[in-house]
Amino acid sequence: MVTDSPPLPPRAVVLLSGGLDSAVSLAIARERGFRCLAVSFRYGQRHAAELRAAERVARALGADRHVVTSVDLRSIGGSALTADIPVPKDRAMADVGTGIPVTYVPGRNTVFLSLGLAWAEVYGAGDIFVGMNVLDYSGYPDCRPAYLRAFEAMANLATKAAVEDGRRICIQAPLIELTKREIIARGLSLGVDFGLTLSCYDPDEDGCACGHCDACRLRLRGFAENSVADPATYRTGVEDVPSP
Amino acid sequence: MVTDSPPLPPRAVVLLSGGLDSAVSLAIARERGFRCLAVSFRYGQRHAAELRAAERVARALGADRHVVTSVDLRSIGGSALTADIPVPKDRAMADVGTGIPVTYVPGRNTVFLSLGLAWAEVYGAGDIFVGMNVLDYSGYPDCRPAYLRAFEAMANLATKAAVEDGRRICIQAPLIELTKREIIARGLSLGVDFGLTLSCYDPDEDGCACGHCDACRLRLRGFAENSVADPATYRTGVEDVPSP
Repeated sequence: MVTDSPPLPPRAVVLLSGGLDSAVSLAIARERGFRCLAVSFRYGQRHAAELRAAERVARALGADRHVVTSVDLRSIGGSALTADIPVPKDRAMADVGTGIPVTYVPGRNTVFLSLGLAWAEVYGAGDIFVGMNVLDYSGYPDCRPAYLRAFEAMANLATKAAVEDGRRICIQAPLIELTKREIIARGLSLGVDFGLTLSCYDPDEDGCACGHCDACRLRLRGFAENSVADPATYRTGVEDVPSP
Repeated sequence: MVTDSPPLPPRAVVLLSGGLDSAVSLAIARERGFRCLAVSFRYGQRHAAELRAAERVARALGADRHVVTSVDLRSIGGSALTADIPVPKDRAMADVGTGIPVTYVPGRNTVFLSLGLAWAEVYGAGDIFVGMNVLDYSGYPDCRPAYLRAFEAMANLATKAAVEDGRRICIQAPLIELTKREIIARGLSLGVDFGLTLSCYDPDEDGCACGHCDACRLRLRGFAENSVADPATYRTGVEDVPSP
């Protein structure tokens, strides 16, 4: 009996930081039937714990393959995530997510998306999934929808795949308009094990979160709003989860 | 006597490969009065001789500073410049510069421009100079004017400097419509010492050019058309410079 072979699943590149948002983005790509190449970056961040988290998340969520590409943003400097600038702690929740914080890394998302584009061409992917969301990070210009649309337009003029082979690039940002509460709820519904993820800007060497930086505070509030305990490991002193 | 201090010169980032085109681009930026940060990349290219050439060119043309940023395009692969794919030699001149050659590195110019954008933000530059030209490299999608305009549009939505501080990013491609003959003539008129530059895709360890790859052949023809000897050092066998 001759049967048609099943159609090949479409391929996607998923930028995976090890944090909560990009894990949910990968889960959504998998739910939509994509075969996924998870791409993380060693960019001179002060801690490598997030790369270990990304590896765990890629495996747990069934990525085809996980790669880590090195790019030296540390020598460019200018951010609390790569230079010797203190990570802010215990900021008022009204300030978290507004203005451009010192954790902003100049050009970072553009560099990461560009490397994701290079991987997409080699892997044969048309879709690039990112975990950006505009509400929690309104201060970062390179997390906004207009920026992502402009990147996509550029990408479709940049590669041999797009220009000669007609493989359109689509930047997928499924979380772009979701709150942290909604992102966590979406992840829980897809079975994401958030205990594998690491959001903290200032974890210790074992990957335990500080509980006090903007990223921890947004995350803790998101879990509280879902009436679910955050399964991540915190070092100490997060009993005072900020109220929503 | 009180005198006004002279206005500060505007700042530019200049992407500098060590090749002929980007050297002329730097000379033009200097001629236009820019204070220049020259940026080169260690991207997993098979030979480091071009970085030594870039260092020489930056110094000779009066760049303020020269930096080398590392980004691992080799692990992404897909090109004769980073993977174990032979560099084509002695192709018919009618084929050189048409189609997309195996020396095309997926996403390379987008990654380089993105890192240039990050440097521009930190250095305080609004202008980014690139040596791309469309005539000799019509096969590379990321050397075309429409691509550069799309990158510029994206860049002006990407950075804190552009979005909050009103420092518009301008991608300057002064060679974009020049032939190699015209680029060499322009460089000669600006006093560029082309003996410092290295264009070859396949130089030996001493930085001697092969004379037979597409880049060497385009360059040699450009000098011949100017009736000037190419001051670069070739290994052997370039007596048969292709006729225009």
